[in-house]
Amino acid sequence: MSTSTTQDLANAFTALCKKGEFEAAGQQYWADTVVSVEAMEGDMARVEGRAAVEAKGAWWYANHEIHSVKVEGPYVNGNQFVVRFTMDVTPKGGQRLQMDEMGIYTVQGGKITEERFFYGS
Amino acid sequence: MSTSTTQDLANAFTALCKKGEFEAAGQQYWADTVVSVEAMEGDMARVEGRAAVEAKGAWWYANHEIHSVKVEGPYVNGNQFVVRFTMDVTPKGGQRLQMDEMGIYTVQGGKITEERFFYGS
Repeated sequence: MSTSTTQDLANAFTALCKKGEFEAAGQQYWADTVVSVEAMEGDMARVEGRAAVEAKGAWWYANHEIHSVKVEGPYVNGNQFVVRFTMDVTPKGGQRLQMDEMGIYTVQGGKITEERFFYGS
Repeated sequence: MSTSTTQDLANAFTALCKKGEFEAAGQQYWADTVVSVEAMEGDMARVEGRAAVEAKGAWWYANHEIHSVKVEGPYVNGNQFVVRFTMDVTPKGGQRLQMDEMGIYTVQGGKITEERFFYGS
């Protein structure tokens, strides 16, 4: 996997995110074996496989009202890239909050094989 | 290495960077075996060991005039954290430019064992 191919994938993936098409971005670029790693303890910390990662996304979108999202990136190094998401959201039944999150994506064979999320404090 | 220890190190490291004390931040928190990975080809792509990484930093500071730096973060997940650097710099003999860079740091045994830099395009 060359850097330029990772750059192309990163550009296309991030362009979809900038249009708000997060689920389409994942569906188009996740590998079947994609692993999603959150900065938390518990069941959602590590989710493996496209079906499980899609279900995690569906749960998230069903349980959060998104008021606005700012997407910055991509930032590329080798077969990895970084995208920053600054989100204004209200969790269902919860308080509106600002999320500031970095996603680090690993690319192999033209697909995203891992996404790993980092949160600002 | 627990997440809270990584969070503490990430906070302290980033606080030094926010004060402009980049070299002090490295000197205090790099492991002797630290590896620094840039998004480029060639000799500087992968630099290993504290002495070599310090020399790389010294070279960079000697060859760039820094007009301003904005430091955002840290963003933590497990034993890794992310810091964003937005820099207004002039390379020696070159044109003033805006750098937009993510550093991803890996922590083991209370020290930074790897730093990996990602650039926005």
